[in-house]
Amino acid sequence: MFVFCVLNLLKLKNMIIKQLSVFLENKSGRLHEVFEIFGENNINVSACSVADTSEFGILRMIVSEPEKARDVLKEKLFSVNISEVISFATPNTPGALAKALQILSKANISIEYLYGFSVGEKSFIALRSDNVEQAIMELQRNQMELISASDLYKF
Amino acid sequence: MFVFCVLNLLKLKNMIIKQLSVFLENKSGRLHEVFEIFGENNINVSACSVADTSEFGILRMIVSEPEKARDVLKEKLFSVNISEVISFATPNTPGALAKALQILSKANISIEYLYGFSVGEKSFIALRSDNVEQAIMELQRNQMELISASDLYKF
Amino acid sequence: MFVFCVLNLLKLKNMIIKQLSVFLENKSGRLHEVFEIFGENNINVSACSVADTSEFGILRMIVSEPEKARDVLKEKLFSVNISEVISFATPNTPGALAKALQILSKANISIEYLYGFSVGEKSFIALRSDNVEQAIMELQRNQMELISASDLYKF
Amino acid sequence: MFVFCVLNLLKLKNMIIKQLSVFLENKSGRLHEVFEIFGENNINVSACSVADTSEFGILRMIVSEPEKARDVLKEKLFSVNISEVISFATPNTPGALAKALQILSKANISIEYLYGFSVGEKSFIALRSDNVEQAIMELQRNQMELISASDLYKF
Repeated sequence: MFVFCVLNLLKLKNMIIKQLSVFLENKSGRLHEVFEIFGENNINVSACSVADTSEFGILRMIVSEPEKARDVLKEKLFSVNISEVISFATPNTPGALAKALQILSKANISIEYLYGFSVGEKSFIALRSDNVEQAIMELQRNQMELISASDLYKF
Repeated sequence: MFVFCVLNLLKLKNMIIKQLSVFLENKSGRLHEVFEIFGENNINVSACSVADTSEFGILRMIVSEPEKARDVLKEKLFSVNISEVISFATPNTPGALAKALQILSKANISIEYLYGFSVGEKSFIALRSDNVEQAIMELQRNQMELISASDLYKF
Repeated sequence: MFVFCVLNLLKLKNMIIKQLSVFLENKSGRLHEVFEIFGENNINVSACSVADTSEFGILRMIVSEPEKARDVLKEKLFSVNISEVISFATPNTPGALAKALQILSKANISIEYLYGFSVGEKSFIALRSDNVEQAIMELQRNQMELISASDLYKF
Repeated sequence: MFVFCVLNLLKLKNMIIKQLSVFLENKSGRLHEVFEIFGENNINVSACSVADTSEFGILRMIVSEPEKARDVLKEKLFSVNISEVISFATPNTPGALAKALQILSKANISIEYLYGFSVGEKSFIALRSDNVEQAIMELQRNQMELISASDLYKF
């Protein structure tokens, strides 16, 4: 029983994805620079999204080695933060994503933002909520296909 | 020659992707509602990203039938707009995205925002620039793999 | 004693400022339109601030008649919401605003955003926190100069 | 004639306001820190506004000594930028601000964002446009009351 709990806890931990947030003072130039630094350091980008103002941007990314990525960006004087998100896949059919969001909504888990892409038969979503652990448990309990950190980083 | 130009123009037009932007007064509840309306109307979401403030969100999406999607959302009193973006694929390897951004940067095309996901051997990107047509031409001239509207909508 | 409590409660309520948030699909044109509608309807703007993305804006405002303002904008098909903020004045001297923010910080009240202007000997601030009522009580307890709704609307 | 032009040019330059933009990784804590650093360094804040996402904020400010302010914040490892805005005053009456925005709109000058406060008989506005110099000339030509950098910094 104890082993079972520890295993579940480990599984939960592995479902928490570390997302990088990078402040871009100048959207075009700095955006390019971030991806160039990643290229030189062999860091792969699994997902990305820019939240923008007229002048600036905040680049959110899921990358292959989050801590290393943060360190190489900080060396180049970028403002970088790590926050926790979850990732899951749904069938790439109308209404499938609504079903996942309804599960979270019914459990009173609020969503701060999400980003995703549909490829072939699946849609892949990264999602930030106010309660990452509860979101994972609700989605698991409802047989949604969560994507673990180790799976996402190597995509 | 004339036929060639018209064909090229048609190809260019087909590379311009119509993106929906929907204002979410209440991030969690309204987000769920949008995807539910799409499910009921058989509209598929190819890509999505939320630009957020503390209280509100702007949901950007590439969907299977942009005009129909806009109309069904407007009927439900959402604020909806259509703007133009481009989409392309790069190999899912470190530095591949940097190369695409460098092409745009060298041509002085500025990027307002982007969002994307890597799946299997490819990364799929949606990108908004101040000059969508020139961005398409530069990426094509450099043998980047652009994704057409018709391909993206049916993904 | 009972009367005293009711009076305090009334005072507290009067310190809660109703802020309008209006979605601007097109920053320049719609911004102008909002203020024109207010001019025609004799609604005065006490404070305003735009939170912007590359393409859109969210115009936050404190106005003389919030409910009427919301209704006239909704008639013109704007997306409008009312949320609660507080407003206070500090001396227009270096460090005075820091003192007010420290009071909130010490009480673990988090700030979502603020906007303000210094004129003559005073700085006027509108502030949105996760706990408006506690913010009011903490600022009052520390002899900060809160501005009531009735005072602000007629400014 | 030459002297006249130089004087006009000097006047134009003095109407361009230097605005600081500071990235806040953590809205509450860092906000307080910025104003505390300004207090210690005797820097006064004439106007401020936060453009926010769920997690981060961008604090825009007009301060008494912009270059010094940037330097003391950079020493504390804040990401800081300086951009140009204009500031003007209108009568604090319904419709007065609409008139100023109409002047810019008619001259096809687009507005990225603005923030302002009404105090007593006047409304004070800070405004960012895509063409700061033309905005100044249009407002001057229409007898609007521009506020110079030297006046604003000492407010």
